[in-house]
Amino acid sequence: MPLLLTDADVAARLDAPTAVAAMRDALVAAHEGRLIAPPRASAVLEGGRLVMTAGHLADEWYGFRSYDTFGHADGEQLVVLHDARDGRIRAIAVGEEIGSRRTGALGGAAVDLLARPDAASVGVIGSGRQAWTQLWAAAAVRPLSSVRVFSRSAARRGAFAARVSAALGVPAAPVESAADAVRGRDLVIVATTSEEPVLSAADVVPGAHVNLVGFKQRGRAEFGIDLLGRAGVIATDSPAQAVAYSPPLLMCGTPLEGALCDLGAIAAGAAPGRRSADEITVFLSVGLAGTEVFLLDRVATLLTSADVG
Amino acid sequence: MPLLLTDADVAARLDAPTAVAAMRDALVAAHEGRLIAPPRASAVLEGGRLVMTAGHLADEWYGFRSYDTFGHADGEQLVVLHDARDGRIRAIAVGEEIGSRRTGALGGAAVDLLARPDAASVGVIGSGRQAWTQLWAAAAVRPLSSVRVFSRSAARRGAFAARVSAALGVPAAPVESAADAVRGRDLVIVATTSEEPVLSAADVVPGAHVNLVGFKQRGRAEFGIDLLGRAGVIATDSPAQAVAYSPPLLMCGTPLEGALCDLGAIAAGAAPGRRSADEITVFLSVGLAGTEVFLLDRVATLLTSADVG
Repeated sequence: MPLLLTDADVAARLDAPTAVAAMRDALVAAHEGRLIAPPRASAVLEGGRLVMTAGHLADEWYGFRSYDTFGHADGEQLVVLHDARDGRIRAIAVGEEIGSRRTGALGGAAVDLLARPDAASVGVIGSGRQAWTQLWAAAAVRPLSSVRVFSRSAARRGAFAARVSAALGVPAAPVESAADAVRGRDLVIVATTSEEPVLSAADVVPGAHVNLVGFKQRGRAEFGIDLLGRAGVIATDSPAQAVAYSPPLLMCGTPLEGALCDLGAIAAGAAPGRRSADEITVFLSVGLAGTEVFLLDRVATLLTSADVG
Repeated sequence: MPLLLTDADVAARLDAPTAVAAMRDALVAAHEGRLIAPPRASAVLEGGRLVMTAGHLADEWYGFRSYDTFGHADGEQLVVLHDARDGRIRAIAVGEEIGSRRTGALGGAAVDLLARPDAASVGVIGSGRQAWTQLWAAAAVRPLSSVRVFSRSAARRGAFAARVSAALGVPAAPVESAADAVRGRDLVIVATTSEEPVLSAADVVPGAHVNLVGFKQRGRAEFGIDLLGRAGVIATDSPAQAVAYSPPLLMCGTPLEGALCDLGAIAAGAAPGRRSADEITVFLSVGLAGTEVFLLDRVATLLTSADVG
């Protein structure tokens, strides 16, 4: 009988340091070719698609995440983990916590690999689930001192700041503009559903690290190409997925295209990361395939050993 | 929290009449265009593939079966049922009982729609799980009087006959050749992994109905084209899937190609079935996609109402 995990189980049992360590390992495994993550497969239904993103860590596990595009507010995803030795299903997670926490933890790994060691102040644009998990993970890799958050809804940004203070123990305040959130901050997290730039590159100070979670395509991006033009490092969790975007990634077809580098290579020590304290570093989060299964493997192992111990 | 069903749960709770009725409804729904079943989607991993076959019954449910091609003896499949109204996952079945029972029940629906009303004697070639579920379902639609079974292993055919007698209450005996199993029988079930013909068309008597479950392609088929040449009706559960086979379906490119008809059309009363008591009828089982989810919906509904009642 496989382990069946709900969102509540994942929220209660998965801590941010574990999630970030898992995603850092996943990045290295992908860079080294051990984590196989083929393009997504999908089946067209009436009014929507069922989509499967698969992953395989040779000799250890394989599995997939499934989700659909019907747009139900409470629609549930699935992450399924098979043991590679016998094909049995070890664990199934229902809901979206594994998915959103792996995205947050990939962002946390980027902060850990690219932000200044003394980065402490954070500016957040966006107050949704993605913004939250980014911050949850960042707090595991840097001793955050203060958070400022902007989003369009005053009620939502206020609630977000209150949650940050309560859950992460970091002083947090809502602010009235993106510029107020971003200016002078060591870390900047942009996690919106906007199809147009929501921050000005000029507000990002030298030495800052920026995680970009939302749209990042030509004609549909939450930031401008000017921000990338100021960056010394532009990394992504999956160069292969990033260059396959349609419409194309914002920087594709521009002189900046060659600057895109693999965060996994940086994690593996095979590529340089930040080179100076006043360089701006940017992480373009695309959601490396197979990482949901990678994270479920860690959670399942954690729960199984807890049961035994 | 979705319902999680193991093979033991399915075996204990799903009876053959329910399964056959579900598959008959599924055939009609597919014929009428209400059951959407797109081509399978797959993701290529290292040494195998993960495959998803999806189904969607408009306004009611959507879901999929996943399986892989790694060839693990105990590898587990998954069938997942979403409620189409809110996207939530209602039920998950782990293992292969839903899959093999739906194949058996499609065969049972074919027997019900095509065999003579008084068909009672059965010849079976094959003694595996597929042969078993075919018989399990056939027994729900005809009052079987006797079963003869042949397979290459004397031990396995003996065990199969004993199981038939014990579980279905039908006298059953192992026999020493395919001809002995088939000759003079009202129903013939062929469910082998053979890539070459295992029965002689001459042994099939006028008036018989034949379910063909194994390979049915050019250069790889458990029966010969001569058997189809003798048939008055050649039906399949999915003409679309059958003609998409590679290598092609045995009859493709022959004068018999136009004779292939949709069992769903017969179930819906839109096409004739058997026209006389001495006609041979044949069912080519290809496994209509979406039917695993169709069956899981019925099982989940059954269990949910049982809990309430």
